[in-house]
Amino acid sequence: MEVRDVEIGFMIKLARGERVMETLLAFCEKRGIKSGVFNAIGAVKNTEIGYYNLEKREYFFKKIAEEREVASMTGNIAEVEGKPLIHAHAVLSAMDDTLSCVGAHIKEAEVAVTLEVFLTPFALPLARAYDEATGLKLLQL
Amino acid sequence: MEVRDVEIGFMIKLARGERVMETLLAFCEKRGIKSGVFNAIGAVKNTEIGYYNLEKREYFFKKIAEEREVASMTGNIAEVEGKPLIHAHAVLSAMDDTLSCVGAHIKEAEVAVTLEVFLTPFALPLARAYDEATGLKLLQL
Amino acid sequence: MEVRDVEIGFMIKLARGERVMETLLAFCEKRGIKSGVFNAIGAVKNTEIGYYNLEKREYFFKKIAEEREVASMTGNIAEVEGKPLIHAHAVLSAMDDTLSCVGAHIKEAEVAVTLEVFLTPFALPLARAYDEATGLKLLQL
Repeated sequence: MEVRDVEIGFMIKLARGERVMETLLAFCEKRGIKSGVFNAIGAVKNTEIGYYNLEKREYFFKKIAEEREVASMTGNIAEVEGKPLIHAHAVLSAMDDTLSCVGAHIKEAEVAVTLEVFLTPFALPLARAYDEATGLKLLQL
Repeated sequence: MEVRDVEIGFMIKLARGERVMETLLAFCEKRGIKSGVFNAIGAVKNTEIGYYNLEKREYFFKKIAEEREVASMTGNIAEVEGKPLIHAHAVLSAMDDTLSCVGAHIKEAEVAVTLEVFLTPFALPLARAYDEATGLKLLQL
Repeated sequence: MEVRDVEIGFMIKLARGERVMETLLAFCEKRGIKSGVFNAIGAVKNTEIGYYNLEKREYFFKKIAEEREVASMTGNIAEVEGKPLIHAHAVLSAMDDTLSCVGAHIKEAEVAVTLEVFLTPFALPLARAYDEATGLKLLQL
């Protein structure tokens, strides 16, 4: 991981093999970042991707082992019980001539080749808290 | 809808059942926001999604009733005849094991579970005006 | 191309027929922009889209002649040997009732109807340099 401070945030380059969420969270903890937003492009592999099934009140995740382009990734950072948590969605495209896409919530992924992240931190912390109605940790604004 | 002021804009949480464009436009009108950009992640249902057919000079929209993940949403705000108008595109993914994506212009959608929006307003207004050549209201910069 | 200065960057409208990367790079050179990030929505045609095959150490590109919605586009700007280079990924959706998506790295595309770009420049330059391990020009942070 390499980082450069820019005016309204950080350009971050994650290296091949780094775990995306784990590495970004470690960066947030080190820098005292409690809230913010980011986007990213690059490629990932061993991705855990899925969605929240409101009826069953549980996440469905599947593992995509092969490398996929990160055609888009959008995320935010907020605290749960004093620790930063990342909520990120992405669209991943197949590295074959179909270039077909899957998309959803990203639990974790490993960088393939590179991942270029632009992260804007906020000065004030944001928090998530358990919401009885949905079973999710929702933003508390 | 809940809102938190952050350095360069607003974190906004839309609640289950709220209409995305209607609610964001009402927020813009209330706060005097005449221009800006935003992105969002979450889930929606009853989505009117489509594209502009330049040859026929009309929009094609279809309604997707079932819940879909908002894998990405990118939009901007500009005024038409003194009132804010949102132009937003999104990629929606199926909540099944395919996680397959559709994407296009979003006319309206209803929040399913939650929608987390990061909106950056601009101080100066931007305007859209009718363009004879395309039949669309294009940005006037 | 039309441009408006806003607080943290530029709103840019590319016109029908303009080449996206060529036009944005010319803008960056004219304004002395050596680094930054951007996103865009609109529609494109004659798109060269593909991915980097790490094993073969070469890009695979295909040409999509017909018009596609730009459901999302995310990119950044950094210098290679003193000249700005754009790295951009996008999700493009079909202008038919499937609204199906392809996504990947965009080499070049021609604007169909309009493309609305929000670009945030950085004051400090960023650089890319050839990386022996991957064969790619990676960000040097």
